[in-house]
Amino acid sequence: MERIDRQIAFTKEIDKLKDVYRRSYLLSQSRMENSAEHSWHISVMAMFLSEYSNVEIDRLRVIEMLLIHDIVEVDAGDTYCYDENSTIGKEQREEKAANRLFHLLPGEQADRLMRLRHEFEEAKTPESLFANALDRFMPLIHNFSTMGRAWKENGITKGQVLKRNKSIADGSHALWEYAKHRINEASEKGWLKNDDDPNTQKRETDNDTA
Amino acid sequence: MERIDRQIAFTKEIDKLKDVYRRSYLLSQSRMENSAEHSWHISVMAMFLSEYSNVEIDRLRVIEMLLIHDIVEVDAGDTYCYDENSTIGKEQREEKAANRLFHLLPGEQADRLMRLRHEFEEAKTPESLFANALDRFMPLIHNFSTMGRAWKENGITKGQVLKRNKSIADGSHALWEYAKHRINEASEKGWLKNDDDPNTQKRETDNDTA
Repeated sequence: MERIDRQIAFTKEIDKLKDVYRRSYLLSQSRMENSAEHSWHISVMAMFLSEYSNVEIDRLRVIEMLLIHDIVEVDAGDTYCYDENSTIGKEQREEKAANRLFHLLPGEQADRLMRLRHEFEEAKTPESLFANALDRFMPLIHNFSTMGRAWKENGITKGQVLKRNKSIADGSHALWEYAKHRINEASEKGWLKNDDDPNTQKRETDNDTA
Repeated sequence: MERIDRQIAFTKEIDKLKDVYRRSYLLSQSRMENSAEHSWHISVMAMFLSEYSNVEIDRLRVIEMLLIHDIVEVDAGDTYCYDENSTIGKEQREEKAANRLFHLLPGEQADRLMRLRHEFEEAKTPESLFANALDRFMPLIHNFSTMGRAWKENGITKGQVLKRNKSIADGSHALWEYAKHRINEASEKGWLKNDDDPNTQKRETDNDTA
């Protein structure tokens, strides 16, 4: 195959990401969000929230990471972060998917995307820490804006949300401060279950979010 | 409002782009494509097709332009490029939309997005010429891959497609060569109407499709 034919084959294959649905509702609540439009949304956010990164970052690398971070879901599907069963074998499934999908592209371009994805998954560089922070921050915004609809439907507790999202601080203390404040509000409003007694929705007084 | 509250307000408002549908089908043909996922798709394409730009370009600026180029459609709606009527007043509608939407952000960030959008619309810089080329190239791929479904449904002719898309060459001769070859194939297969067909709607005088 010619170089451009390989690139077009990849272009066509990743169209399938538009048919991979997540557990977040659109803010209009008309339907669930798909992974392609989610990737767009957090990439745009990187354009105007990068100022909250704990350290100086290369915005191009953050955006490119975010644009491709979910492409593996074309083969591996979306994994709900609070579903312990679906996270089993996730890493292997996604690595296999990355290998097949990215290698539709010419060799050195495939290698570049593989490296970008690994950087995102390892979450060690400043760029990947911030990209991961945005990837976690976004579903919080969706839940804050829909009275915790996806949280309620899946019986999620405040403790689960804090545990899942505390790593936002590794990329951005500022975004984590904002998120904690809003998580506390959500809990007070009864949008999240109480970890001690899931059947009660009493006011949460424990602000220890560590 | 605090700075971060303005940024979150913008984040929430642009979620509506996921509910703006275009005239292109997903390759799965399960539904029409929306403008948010379209923006994601062409931004990813910029990552591995920039090598076909006629001149050296700043990839970050191309990608950022593509990420935000359709946000105005939250207010102004999508305009089908071959629909003469819907292109009337498009420029004014979209400028008004840009003013409202981008100015949800803090001042200097709003200004930056306004400048990026104007650069894209004016299509004079190397980055904006290439970004526009991708924006036109993508719907061709959708039509090539769905036996010209959207073209057929809208009675589009080969001449209209050539006229609408020839400016791809201003950003990328290589992509335009590829596109012309595929447009000829599509025409031979009957996916596009002949321009001399008496039943064809004549739209050659529509300047907005040039």
